[in-house]
Amino acid sequence: MEPGSKVTLRWRGKILRGVFVKEDKGFIVLKLSNGYNVGIPKDEAEILSVEGREHIGKPRFHYRPVQNPDLPKVGIAATGGTIAARVDYVTGAVTAEFTVEDLVNTFPELNELATLVPRQVSNIFSENMVPSIWREIARGVYELLKESDGVVVTHGTDTMHYSTAYLSFALSTPKPVVFTGAQRSSDRPSSDAALNLLSSVYVAGYSPLKGVFLSMHESSSDGWNAVHLGTRVRKMHTSRRDTFRSIGRDPVARVYIEARGGRIVRKEFQLLDPEWTREHPLELRDHLNENVALLKYFPGMKKELFERVLLEHDGVVIEGTGFGHVREELIPLIKEAVDSGVFVGITSQTIYGRTHSHVYSTAVKMEEAGAVFLEDMLPETAFAKLVWVLGQTKDLERARDLMLTNVAGEITERSGIEWKL
Amino acid sequence: MEPGSKVTLRWRGKILRGVFVKEDKGFIVLKLSNGYNVGIPKDEAEILSVEGREHIGKPRFHYRPVQNPDLPKVGIAATGGTIAARVDYVTGAVTAEFTVEDLVNTFPELNELATLVPRQVSNIFSENMVPSIWREIARGVYELLKESDGVVVTHGTDTMHYSTAYLSFALSTPKPVVFTGAQRSSDRPSSDAALNLLSSVYVAGYSPLKGVFLSMHESSSDGWNAVHLGTRVRKMHTSRRDTFRSIGRDPVARVYIEARGGRIVRKEFQLLDPEWTREHPLELRDHLNENVALLKYFPGMKKELFERVLLEHDGVVIEGTGFGHVREELIPLIKEAVDSGVFVGITSQTIYGRTHSHVYSTAVKMEEAGAVFLEDMLPETAFAKLVWVLGQTKDLERARDLMLTNVAGEITERSGIEWKL
Repeated sequence: MEPGSKVTLRWRGKILRGVFVKEDKGFIVLKLSNGYNVGIPKDEAEILSVEGREHIGKPRFHYRPVQNPDLPKVGIAATGGTIAARVDYVTGAVTAEFTVEDLVNTFPELNELATLVPRQVSNIFSENMVPSIWREIARGVYELLKESDGVVVTHGTDTMHYSTAYLSFALSTPKPVVFTGAQRSSDRPSSDAALNLLSSVYVAGYSPLKGVFLSMHESSSDGWNAVHLGTRVRKMHTSRRDTFRSIGRDPVARVYIEARGGRIVRKEFQLLDPEWTREHPLELRDHLNENVALLKYFPGMKKELFERVLLEHDGVVIEGTGFGHVREELIPLIKEAVDSGVFVGITSQTIYGRTHSHVYSTAVKMEEAGAVFLEDMLPETAFAKLVWVLGQTKDLERARDLMLTNVAGEITERSGIEWKL
Repeated sequence: MEPGSKVTLRWRGKILRGVFVKEDKGFIVLKLSNGYNVGIPKDEAEILSVEGREHIGKPRFHYRPVQNPDLPKVGIAATGGTIAARVDYVTGAVTAEFTVEDLVNTFPELNELATLVPRQVSNIFSENMVPSIWREIARGVYELLKESDGVVVTHGTDTMHYSTAYLSFALSTPKPVVFTGAQRSSDRPSSDAALNLLSSVYVAGYSPLKGVFLSMHESSSDGWNAVHLGTRVRKMHTSRRDTFRSIGRDPVARVYIEARGGRIVRKEFQLLDPEWTREHPLELRDHLNENVALLKYFPGMKKELFERVLLEHDGVVIEGTGFGHVREELIPLIKEAVDSGVFVGITSQTIYGRTHSHVYSTAVKMEEAGAVFLEDMLPETAFAKLVWVLGQTKDLERARDLMLTNVAGEITERSGIEWKL
C-alpha cells in the first residue's frame, strides 16, 4: 500500500473502504469518504483489496471559462482556503493548492451563469489571514467591481467572518460582493464547494443585493444557501456545512441552485431584507491600523496581562461576561489605558444579545472609566471595525462616534422604545 | 421627583410609567418594569403624576424557614449575583445586597418543598469571580452535602458556567448540586429568580440526579426549566431568561414548578438522560492552579502577546479558529512553550463542534509542536479543567492524560466509527 491507495479491509466484522494515508504507531490510517481519518489497529485488520492511487493531481475537468457577452460578468477574487484545497495523501491533511483557474475549471456549470473574471489575491488558509491581507482583498475586490456586475470572494472558512466584517467597512459597493468557501475540499465527493460557488456566482451576477455578504449552506444537506450580512455572521461549528449563522438577525436572502450532469437545472433567489438593495456609490476606504487587539476576559485573568494588552495596543475590543463585564479590580486599568489614548470597546462573550452599561454597577463604573459599550456588535466585527476606525483617527471621541455609528448593519436596532441614553 | 419615585409621563403621544432614577444631560432617566432604563428628553416630557418611592428596603416577605422533618433537607450555598441583588434607585444600577436569609425569606413557597440549610459562601457578582472562590464554593457545597439531600448554589449568571465546570471536576457527589441564578433581580416583578430557585430546590431535594448541574429557564417565558450538565453549558445571550444552553448535547432533565398565592400548585420532573443518576462517592478534590489562561486567537494577534501569554502561565487553553487553528507563524512559539513545560490545550472559538488535529496541515503542525487538541470540550470548561488539572500535576504527559480523560461529561462521544488516533 502506498499513500493514496484505495483500500478495503475488514475490522471487527465491519467492512471499511478508504484511501490509505500512512501507518502510525501500529495503526493503519485511512481517509474515509466523509473526509475523516480513521485509525485501525494493524494486527486486527484484514486487508481485502488494494487498488491504485486515487487521482490526486489537477482536477478532472479542464473546461475553459467561456466569454459569453449575454451573461453577467462576475469577478472571482481567490484568497485560498478549503474551497481551493485538496487532500495531500502523503500527510493525510488538506493543503491550499488550487489556483483560481483550477477552481473555475473544476465547476463547468459556472459557464452557464456568468463570464468569470478571475483574480488571485492570496493563496492561504484563512487561519493565516492578517488584517493587512484584508486590505489586499478589499483592493482586489474594488478593482474587480469596476469591470464586473458583482464579485465572489473564495476564502477559508476559519476567519471568513472577520474578513467580511472588514470589507463591509472598507468598501462601499453598488453591486453584490459575496464571500464563500467550503467545509470539505473541492476534490472530495462530499464537497460543498460546488454548490457554494455556484450559488454565490448566481447572487453576485443576478441579485439586486448591494453590500458585502457571506453565502454558505443553510442546512447540513445540499439545497438552499443562506446569504448572510457580512457584519452579522459567525462561524458557529467546526465541521458542519451550515457552520455560518446570522447572529441577532435573519439572513438577507436565500438562494437555490441545482446542477445535474454539468448543467444547471434550477436556480432561485429569495430576497428576505430589501434594506440591502439600497444604492451605494463604489468607494474604497481601506483604512487600517494593525495595532488593535481582541481580548476575551476570563475569571482570574491577571492584572498584568490585562494592563499590558490594553497599553500595548492603540485599541482593544474586550469580550466581557454577560452585559460586557470584567471584574471590578481591572476597571482602574481601563481608565489608565483610556487616559493614555487607548480606545477600549466592550462586547460580550455570550455572542447573542446587547451589551448594557446601565444595568449593573460594574458596567456603570466601566463606562465611567472610559470604556465604550458597543451595543450588540459581534466581538469579531467590532475588532475588524476598530482596525478600520483607528486607521482613520486616533482621536478617542471621533473613534467613539464612528464605532457607535451603524456603518454596515453591524448594530441592530433596539426593539421597543428602549434606547441608548 | 426623588430617586425611586413612581412617575407617569407623556412623551410624543406615548404614556410611559417607571421609577425615576436620575436626570442626566437633559434626559429624565426612568427604569421601566421590564428592567431597562429609558431616557426621555426633559423638554419633551409632560409629567402626569409622581407617586412616593417604591419600597426599596428589605424584601416584602418575612417568612421564617420552617424545619419540617418530613421534607428533604436542601443546602443553599449563596455566592451573590442578580438573584441576590436589588435595584439601587440612586444609581439606577443593580447591586449585590441580599443575604441568603433574605433570599429564603423572599420565597415562602420554599417552605413547602424543603427544609433549607443556608450557607453564605460569598456575596459578589459573578463577573468578580476568580478561581480561588470556585474552590471556596466547592468546599462550602461539600460541607452542605454532608448534612443535606442536595445543594442549590445561587450564583451570578455571567460566569456561572465557569463555576459549574470547576465544581464538576472538584467534587464527586452522590447527590444533586444545582446552580441557579436570575437575569432580573429578585425585587422586580419580572424577576425569574422565584421559579429558578423553586425549580432548583425541587431538583436538589427530590430528583435522582447525581453530579453538578445548572438549572435556568428553558424558554424566555415562565414554565419549564432546563437542567444542564455543568460541563456542557454556556451563557449564550446577554439578557434572555433562557440564556443558558446545553452545547453539543441535550439537557439532562426538565423541571416544571407552578406557584400561586404563595403555594405550589404543580411540580413535575422529567429525566432525559439516565446516565446522570449513576452512583458516585462524596469526595472533595479541590485542586487549583491559578496560573492558567484562556486565550482567544484573532487574525493578526501579535507574536509577542501570544508568546508572553504562553510563557507566563503554567498552562493555556487556546480558542483557535475552525478546528482549533492559529496562524502558522505562531506554531514555533507553541513548541517553545511546551518545551519549557507549559501545557497548551486547543479548543475552538466556533463553540460548537469538535477540534481536529488531522484534517488541516496547520493543525498537524500544531500537534507536532506539542499542543493538545481537547476534543469538543468547551473553551470555558477546558480552562476550568486545566486550573484543576495543573493543581494536581505539572507533568505534561500526566496533564495530557487527565485533560483527555472524560471526568464529568465534558467530552461528548464521537458519533460513528471515527475516533482519535
